[in-house]
Amino acid sequence: MAHTFTLLASCSDRVGIVAHVSDFIAQHNGWITEASYHTDPLSRWFFMRHVIAAESLPFGIDEFRRRFVPCAEELNLQWSISDSATPKRVVVLVSKEEHCLAELLYRWRTQDIRFDIAAVISNHEVMRDYVEFHGLPYHYIPVGKDNRGQAFREIEELFERYQAETVVLARYMQILPENLCLRYQGRIINIHHSFLPSFAGAKPYHQAYERGVKLIGATSHYVTQELDTGPIIEQDVIRVNHDTLVDDMVRLGKDVEKIVLARALRYVAEDRVLIHGNKTVVFS
Amino acid sequence: MAHTFTLLASCSDRVGIVAHVSDFIAQHNGWITEASYHTDPLSRWFFMRHVIAAESLPFGIDEFRRRFVPCAEELNLQWSISDSATPKRVVVLVSKEEHCLAELLYRWRTQDIRFDIAAVISNHEVMRDYVEFHGLPYHYIPVGKDNRGQAFREIEELFERYQAETVVLARYMQILPENLCLRYQGRIINIHHSFLPSFAGAKPYHQAYERGVKLIGATSHYVTQELDTGPIIEQDVIRVNHDTLVDDMVRLGKDVEKIVLARALRYVAEDRVLIHGNKTVVFS
Amino acid sequence: MAHTFTLLASCSDRVGIVAHVSDFIAQHNGWITEASYHTDPLSRWFFMRHVIAAESLPFGIDEFRRRFVPCAEELNLQWSISDSATPKRVVVLVSKEEHCLAELLYRWRTQDIRFDIAAVISNHEVMRDYVEFHGLPYHYIPVGKDNRGQAFREIEELFERYQAETVVLARYMQILPENLCLRYQGRIINIHHSFLPSFAGAKPYHQAYERGVKLIGATSHYVTQELDTGPIIEQDVIRVNHDTLVDDMVRLGKDVEKIVLARALRYVAEDRVLIHGNKTVVFS
Amino acid sequence: MAHTFTLLASCSDRVGIVAHVSDFIAQHNGWITEASYHTDPLSRWFFMRHVIAAESLPFGIDEFRRRFVPCAEELNLQWSISDSATPKRVVVLVSKEEHCLAELLYRWRTQDIRFDIAAVISNHEVMRDYVEFHGLPYHYIPVGKDNRGQAFREIEELFERYQAETVVLARYMQILPENLCLRYQGRIINIHHSFLPSFAGAKPYHQAYERGVKLIGATSHYVTQELDTGPIIEQDVIRVNHDTLVDDMVRLGKDVEKIVLARALRYVAEDRVLIHGNKTVVFS
Repeated sequence: MAHTFTLLASCSDRVGIVAHVSDFIAQHNGWITEASYHTDPLSRWFFMRHVIAAESLPFGIDEFRRRFVPCAEELNLQWSISDSATPKRVVVLVSKEEHCLAELLYRWRTQDIRFDIAAVISNHEVMRDYVEFHGLPYHYIPVGKDNRGQAFREIEELFERYQAETVVLARYMQILPENLCLRYQGRIINIHHSFLPSFAGAKPYHQAYERGVKLIGATSHYVTQELDTGPIIEQDVIRVNHDTLVDDMVRLGKDVEKIVLARALRYVAEDRVLIHGNKTVVFS
Repeated sequence: MAHTFTLLASCSDRVGIVAHVSDFIAQHNGWITEASYHTDPLSRWFFMRHVIAAESLPFGIDEFRRRFVPCAEELNLQWSISDSATPKRVVVLVSKEEHCLAELLYRWRTQDIRFDIAAVISNHEVMRDYVEFHGLPYHYIPVGKDNRGQAFREIEELFERYQAETVVLARYMQILPENLCLRYQGRIINIHHSFLPSFAGAKPYHQAYERGVKLIGATSHYVTQELDTGPIIEQDVIRVNHDTLVDDMVRLGKDVEKIVLARALRYVAEDRVLIHGNKTVVFS
Repeated sequence: MAHTFTLLASCSDRVGIVAHVSDFIAQHNGWITEASYHTDPLSRWFFMRHVIAAESLPFGIDEFRRRFVPCAEELNLQWSISDSATPKRVVVLVSKEEHCLAELLYRWRTQDIRFDIAAVISNHEVMRDYVEFHGLPYHYIPVGKDNRGQAFREIEELFERYQAETVVLARYMQILPENLCLRYQGRIINIHHSFLPSFAGAKPYHQAYERGVKLIGATSHYVTQELDTGPIIEQDVIRVNHDTLVDDMVRLGKDVEKIVLARALRYVAEDRVLIHGNKTVVFS
Repeated sequence: MAHTFTLLASCSDRVGIVAHVSDFIAQHNGWITEASYHTDPLSRWFFMRHVIAAESLPFGIDEFRRRFVPCAEELNLQWSISDSATPKRVVVLVSKEEHCLAELLYRWRTQDIRFDIAAVISNHEVMRDYVEFHGLPYHYIPVGKDNRGQAFREIEELFERYQAETVVLARYMQILPENLCLRYQGRIINIHHSFLPSFAGAKPYHQAYERGVKLIGATSHYVTQELDTGPIIEQDVIRVNHDTLVDDMVRLGKDVEKIVLARALRYVAEDRVLIHGNKTVVFS
């Protein structure tokens, strides 16, 4: 795997941004292996992503950061740079359903997606053996009516102890407290089912069956303080028909959920996602 | 194309329905070329579709109807039978957007779908030339605030004059009066855009762009008195990304709308759809 | 999960087959929960699948088998019946690549697909820990130039010892000897990559990249004596573009391979597949 | 629709290409609305596409061309620039099957794809009325054993008379002479069916049915002197099953063919395609 730096940046659109940034990179002999640009014509906001071969540069990532500051300031950039040699540290939260966790463990174990799982936290014990087989720490923190505050304080301490860069809610089934959402804004990703039309209330698969939908889907999004309405990272659907009974829908829903979550995590792990307002730009 | 009869039927589920109906067909030497069954385990309702080679039977469709009555009564069947030699008579309603109408005319002209277009009705004149090139009658019935009642009475008269078996709203953009929906229940099909999540209010594509959705879709459904909530016949989606601007979304939306509508019409034209409550069984 | 019997049968097409079989089932009060029929108009061969609620019958599967014989003989049926309470015994062969094995273990562990893994056989040791974590026997049988005959005799003995009903080649990367293919005809399923156009020779992903294909696929098929040309059970593709480098293609190829293999195994495990000549009927 | 210039270019990869080109654009105040880059790591070839708002530049396309020469020479670029105000002139060749022609006429009539149809040429008369309804010239040039040479000379004269920039073989069913392929290399696009596995010889859909394939596809590619092996522009597939009879496969094949051809033409019309060796880069 090549050693690269990935520079994500966005700013108000104007003439010469690409010239400015690519000049900076070229001045230092940086070899760009991937470059993507996008302008949102409604908000007039410009987004870019450069992947630069690390060995083509005469310095490391810290020196890059330092030298890039004047350029970034001139363009008024919001920016970050990451090093492929330092995979993202991820903490996974899971409840009792295995499908998303198993998918993430597979992607991590095979390094199909380059990321580190720092720890798994759950409000149940059922996944402990499987997680520990992988040599990963497993934290059991039950969440009940009476201890929610305490439980989420512990969870937040674990985020800090493990220096979680990204948190994945892999069917965690618990609503995070607002302050935690706020503190980790743009760093927590969630997966949930999606239907056309959408079904409010309990037992959505049951409702979908009763309504005779022909597609069931899943959406992965960033968690914000407002439930399930954060910036969408990835979506997909799977075809069903009248023969797809409720249990089959649940089963197929799991398949589409885990695939959509894995794709979203790949985009995050490879620094392909920029958030702007309530939407994302995903340079996939 | 083979000459066939298609028997659609449904009833409360019990042991022996298939035996009963297939015995009846076999007694008359009927050669079944397609057979499909479905039981809805929640409502305990049973659905079936048989396609029978017409030449294998010693009589025509009217005699089939007469002789099938005792069997149907014993099973308490809701049933209908159609003759492939008599394609469905369809009236198409259209406004100013061409994509769905052009798709239907193509499918009709090439008999890719076996159906007859009896007439096209529009509240605009823009499609007249294209429709009349096909040798089809075109009725211009403007619909305004002041003449809605009168306009829809004329439209209903046209449905009757043309003996419309199925009405297709090919982006008609007008809400049909309740009594018309009621009278033609289960015979009017509509197409509209669908999003995950759904967007209420005006300019849905604009909202979808602002929300950064990754899929846009379309749903074809039967029209009921309640707006856009009738039984779903077909759905599909198309992938978009941040680069898909609002105009592109509208364009891609047209592509998915016309394809979904054409598929729904095929299912209806080939007597593949049974309605039960607010859902369909589509033996596709 | 409901307790059911699944009856698969096929015969030369003629009038009255469905009536005959459904009569037999109805006589014994059998409640059909799924029924599927297909006629191949070219070969004039008829295929059917019935799922019958076990508790609706007054006897078990052995008695069903005995009583069904006259009916089957009259229709000259090729048939089999299975009991959902006795999941298929599957032996999995694997080499060094994990993706297909991990998928099968997940589907088995969660019983997302109802089947039993009797044992895993490999020509490498790398998967031992992961397989043994699941409590499954792992047999290491190296296959070299000099011991092929001996190795496959051992493998065949393991098939027999474990009473393998189905063998899955989960990226086994070894060509099975002809006599083994012959003895287990219709019982060994394989997965391999597929391209449009197809690429002969080594490094197919490399060739596909060089050719600029826009889709890469996978095919799961029954193993026959002729390499990779047996009856197809399932196929799918995944979209790529010029940015999909060879490594990405390999990675995406793994994703589509494991999904296609899992679907094929589900069809086999649920007795949905009938083989006729060199093709399958899959009542999915 | 915005007035834009689209600059396509490629060259041997090295540091500073993006900086160089974007500097040139920025110097003239050019506002880049889309930019795409790709490096082929195997051939070390670099590809780029810039869309520039025409009104942001102080000069027109001819002056752009003149001024860009030194920059292009320094980088040793292969390049072209086009003006969105001058849509591509396309000549369509068609035989008796309507599906692809009807699709192209729809996309042209609605300007869903921005291109001009200069003329339609056919070896049959069947499409004349439909083409002439659109106000387009229709040339009937029969092609037989005895007049192939003469016929293709006439066809080539028509290409020249109409100044065809792109030629679309919309199911033309005739093999073009080698010299014509050579003269119009990179400018003729074709559509044909694709299968997994591929089927040589006549009646491919019949073979695909007999083989029980689960997918049928289509490939659009540039025509080269070697039959059906030119650079691929776009591919797609559609799902079939055992119930999809040969006629249904042919029908579904038409659907996927016309969609793939329309997408390929859009990419060409919007200057999104670069050819390199026997592959394409499509900035879609």
